[in-house]
Amino acid sequence: MSGHDSVQLGRPRADIDATVFAAALRSVRALGYAGATMDRIAAEAGIAKSTIYRRWPSKGALIVDCLIDAFGPLPVSDGGLEVIARDAVRWIAARIAQPGVGAAFAGVFSDAVSDPALRDLLLNRFQDPYRIVLQNVTGLPEQRVLLFVDLVVGTLLHRLGMTGRPMTEVDVRSLTDVVVAGLRSAS
Amino acid sequence: MSGHDSVQLGRPRADIDATVFAAALRSVRALGYAGATMDRIAAEAGIAKSTIYRRWPSKGALIVDCLIDAFGPLPVSDGGLEVIARDAVRWIAARIAQPGVGAAFAGVFSDAVSDPALRDLLLNRFQDPYRIVLQNVTGLPEQRVLLFVDLVVGTLLHRLGMTGRPMTEVDVRSLTDVVVAGLRSAS
Repeated sequence: MSGHDSVQLGRPRADIDATVFAAALRSVRALGYAGATMDRIAAEAGIAKSTIYRRWPSKGALIVDCLIDAFGPLPVSDGGLEVIARDAVRWIAARIAQPGVGAAFAGVFSDAVSDPALRDLLLNRFQDPYRIVLQNVTGLPEQRVLLFVDLVVGTLLHRLGMTGRPMTEVDVRSLTDVVVAGLRSAS
Repeated sequence: MSGHDSVQLGRPRADIDATVFAAALRSVRALGYAGATMDRIAAEAGIAKSTIYRRWPSKGALIVDCLIDAFGPLPVSDGGLEVIARDAVRWIAARIAQPGVGAAFAGVFSDAVSDPALRDLLLNRFQDPYRIVLQNVTGLPEQRVLLFVDLVVGTLLHRLGMTGRPMTEVDVRSLTDVVVAGLRSAS
C-alpha cells in the first residue's frame, strides 16, 4: 500500500483495488484459481469480505478487473501490420508470464465456458477494448482481429496449462512468426 | 449401456467406463467443470462413488480419461504436411465441439496450471500419443508439433471460452489457413 494521504474517510478506492488485486494474484499463485476463493482473497488482503462483495459481486468479476489492471493499455506503434503484431504478441506473452496472471486468466476463461454473465464481462470489459484498438491500428476486419487474439492468447494459455511455465522466448518468437505469416498470407 | 452379455461378476469395466464418461460430460455440460463434482458425476452415472474412486483417484484423472475416450485415435492420411495439418485441425475442432468435451477440456487444463500431477497426466497420457503420431507422419521436430498443438487447441478453447460456442466452420478454415501458412513458412 502506498502511504499517500487521503481526504476520504476510510481508505481510497484505488488503494483497496490495488490491495485486493495483489492479494488475488498471490492467492491464485499459491492455491490455484479454484482454490483462491473470495474468503481466501479477503483474508490475504486483510479487507472485510463485505467490502469486497460490495465492489465485486463474484470471484469472476473480481478476477476480470484484476486482469484489466494487470494488463493495462496495449502500447501500439504505427510500424505497419507486422511490427504491430510482433509487438502485441510480445506484450501479451509478458503479461501472461507475470506471477498469477496466467493462472487467473486460464481459470476465469475456463469458468466462462459455462457462465454467460462472466463471458459478457470478459468479452466486453476485458477483450473488446483491445480488439477495438487493434482494429483501428491494423485496419484488419473484426473477425481477423478476434482470430489473432484467440491464436495468441489461446496458444500462450494452453502452453502454460500443459507445462506449468510461461512460453520461452524462442517459442514466443516461433508463435509470432506463425501468426505474422498467417496474417500476411490472408490479408 | 450396451446389452451385451458378460461372464464377469458385476458389470464389465468397459461398461462402467462408458457410463461414467457419459455422465461426466453430461454433468460438465449442465453444471460447468467446477460444478461437476465427483459426487454429481457418480449420482448422474448411478454408480457408487467408491467404485469411481477405485478407478480414478481424482476428478482431473477421470476427466483426462474421459477426454482420451472422446477424442480416440487421430486419423492420419499421408497426403503431405498441408493435408495432414488441415485434417488434424478439422478433426480437433469437431471433437472440441462435442457437447461437454470443450468445457471439460478447458476446465482440466486450467486446473493443470496449478496442479503438477494433473499436468503429468494431461501431457503424458493425453497429449503425447498425438504428438508422437504427428511427429512421425509430418517429420516435423517436437517443438514444432507442440507449437502446432498449442495453436490449434489453444485457439479453439479460447474461442469457446469467449463466445460459449464452438468455432464456426468459416473460422476453423481461417485458423487452418493461418496455421498451415505458418508451418509452411517455417519448415
